[in-house]
Amino acid sequence: MKNDSEKKCIYFDWAASSPAVPAPVDTALLFGNPSSLHSEGRAAKNALENARTRCAAVLKVPPETLYFTSGGTESNSIALFSNLKRPGKGRVISSLAEHASVREAMETLEKMSKPVGCITVDSAGRVTPASLEKTLQKYNDVRFTAIMAVNNETGAVTDIAALTGALRASSQSSAPIHFHCDLAQAIGKIPVDITGWEIDSASISAHKINGPRGIGLLYLRKPIEVFYSGHQENGIRGGTENVAGAVALADCLEKYANEQTVLTEHARAKVRWNKLITSLCANSRFRIIPAERKADDDSFSPYILQAAFKDIPGEVMARALDDLGFAVSTGSACSSSSPERPVLVAMGVEENLRIEGIRISQGYTTTDEDIDLLLGAIAEVLKFL
Amino acid sequence: MKNDSEKKCIYFDWAASSPAVPAPVDTALLFGNPSSLHSEGRAAKNALENARTRCAAVLKVPPETLYFTSGGTESNSIALFSNLKRPGKGRVISSLAEHASVREAMETLEKMSKPVGCITVDSAGRVTPASLEKTLQKYNDVRFTAIMAVNNETGAVTDIAALTGALRASSQSSAPIHFHCDLAQAIGKIPVDITGWEIDSASISAHKINGPRGIGLLYLRKPIEVFYSGHQENGIRGGTENVAGAVALADCLEKYANEQTVLTEHARAKVRWNKLITSLCANSRFRIIPAERKADDDSFSPYILQAAFKDIPGEVMARALDDLGFAVSTGSACSSSSPERPVLVAMGVEENLRIEGIRISQGYTTTDEDIDLLLGAIAEVLKFL
Repeated sequence: MKNDSEKKCIYFDWAASSPAVPAPVDTALLFGNPSSLHSEGRAAKNALENARTRCAAVLKVPPETLYFTSGGTESNSIALFSNLKRPGKGRVISSLAEHASVREAMETLEKMSKPVGCITVDSAGRVTPASLEKTLQKYNDVRFTAIMAVNNETGAVTDIAALTGALRASSQSSAPIHFHCDLAQAIGKIPVDITGWEIDSASISAHKINGPRGIGLLYLRKPIEVFYSGHQENGIRGGTENVAGAVALADCLEKYANEQTVLTEHARAKVRWNKLITSLCANSRFRIIPAERKADDDSFSPYILQAAFKDIPGEVMARALDDLGFAVSTGSACSSSSPERPVLVAMGVEENLRIEGIRISQGYTTTDEDIDLLLGAIAEVLKFL
Repeated sequence: MKNDSEKKCIYFDWAASSPAVPAPVDTALLFGNPSSLHSEGRAAKNALENARTRCAAVLKVPPETLYFTSGGTESNSIALFSNLKRPGKGRVISSLAEHASVREAMETLEKMSKPVGCITVDSAGRVTPASLEKTLQKYNDVRFTAIMAVNNETGAVTDIAALTGALRASSQSSAPIHFHCDLAQAIGKIPVDITGWEIDSASISAHKINGPRGIGLLYLRKPIEVFYSGHQENGIRGGTENVAGAVALADCLEKYANEQTVLTEHARAKVRWNKLITSLCANSRFRIIPAERKADDDSFSPYILQAAFKDIPGEVMARALDDLGFAVSTGSACSSSSPERPVLVAMGVEENLRIEGIRISQGYTTTDEDIDLLLGAIAEVLKFL
């Protein structure tokens, strides 16, 4: 294995994190505390509110529905733990394929005696209206639902509008059910329509779309009472506001998540992904996860691929590719310490495929040549393993 | 009032936030997710652990006792909410002069039926061993104490070692009492001895010592069970690690919080502060808060001054100085939306002085000339108001 620092790496783990583009903003101008009343504070406050307005314009939501947080995990936590403040004994349900940050928050809610429930997913990791309805019928006390838009392991795209429609239909006769949507792998990757989908709350992470770490957004259609906060961000999220981060996130949303760029980049990503998948399918040891995924399949994000190679444990494949200069992952980075791969279990993926599974994910700057080189590297590994 | 963007400002609100020095680190090298196993992930993990080790060396604690968080508020929250996981009905007590992030977390704990209690402070906002002992005697079930090292409104320095000594003496016969210390205004400003003071947990914020927003540290002498987390940071704090932020914090701690620099800068800050206070004392309308503070007083941080000017509401004075190009604050930025000034109330400051109070705070780059200019500006305002 070559020394890490000497290696040129071709990066295929964009779903875990993307290279942060240095923010053009002069952060020296933004050092004031936005809660301070003097000119530095006001300048920082203006920069923060300007960033919020720009994010809102891209997401087509009112600026006052957006709250800056430290990232997707915190946005998910704030939304989920608001249930500890929700009056009554309402149940919180989430799909079995959610990101670790939702799954772990659900476990905490359960330990705190909050009634919880699971929504089963299909073989791609998607919640269907039927599975949601089944869960709603099983319980009669559901008040909060958490379902992600794009599965971070398989790239499966869930029809969120169909789910919120099912929710509305079922909650007509009782109290409305809150719908929380993790958009971490959706924003900047697929067309997203927060308002049209009738989402009540959503999570966005900057570092998945070339932004810095430590900044994200929580969308709240209506203010909610949160479990805990300071007074900042309208009482939703405490701590001195990360103004430079907010501006960088606004830059990234404008650059990568505007409607036109999403469509253009999606089309380009699809061409590259179709090539990758078609070429891999020619190899008899390749298994796509789930098996029904086609090369040109609009029900999956063209940025994520879950793949398995017969008789090669995913970890061995990932290390072999790493030695050749390619970064892929086994499972999501946020679950890399957990060998169980709970999302694949929920999808009904058989054990040997779970062990063999690797996640390949691309980004905006991935090139055709990168795909060719990756295919060559995989062929190389398959010769010897 | 001049246009904000045209104004050159002399900044006297360092206690709220400090100008972030751009980090020299090449963040492009650190974009991997530290939880990923490939070379980018390992490089990010190495950078993160190297940052932790550097922070630990400055703070003279083992690296494994430091956990990166999104800032001081989150560090305080994690420590305080760990009480929801602490077995038994142990009481949580904190001083009446704590930062808003502690005060608000205490309110949440109380609403969640956790037994809480208050420790009274002296006229400077300090907890004395006697007041701590009194609170411990009042209750027989205290298991957690939160007391700050340097008061963010007055700069009063608390003798933390004396308090942990009192705690040990009182808990000899029962279970040990956890001591949490908010070091936000202490690190880089006064000599701090986490180990020698026998602190169990502590909070540090980067943006108070010229670091970026969105990064801080939680020190934990021993691991604790936290209310909620992802698997990152050894299960203490969830979310993809902010590697660039961690490196920037390590840079700032090395630069500003090493023993020698703290002493050197403290001596310089004292000279400037003595001049400021001595000159202000010559004006009959000036009141120092608390009244017993002397110009050359080692029981206060020479970076913070709470001042009042007879018959001028603090907000009016702050705005007048702002118009002249000087940034000072009324209360801490994190409490600026709360007109009550609860810390001054706890100190027993009379109502007119609470209304008149402003906080002046300096930093490493404040100059003698800045002090002269501020004195001139205050004299100017006093002529007309």
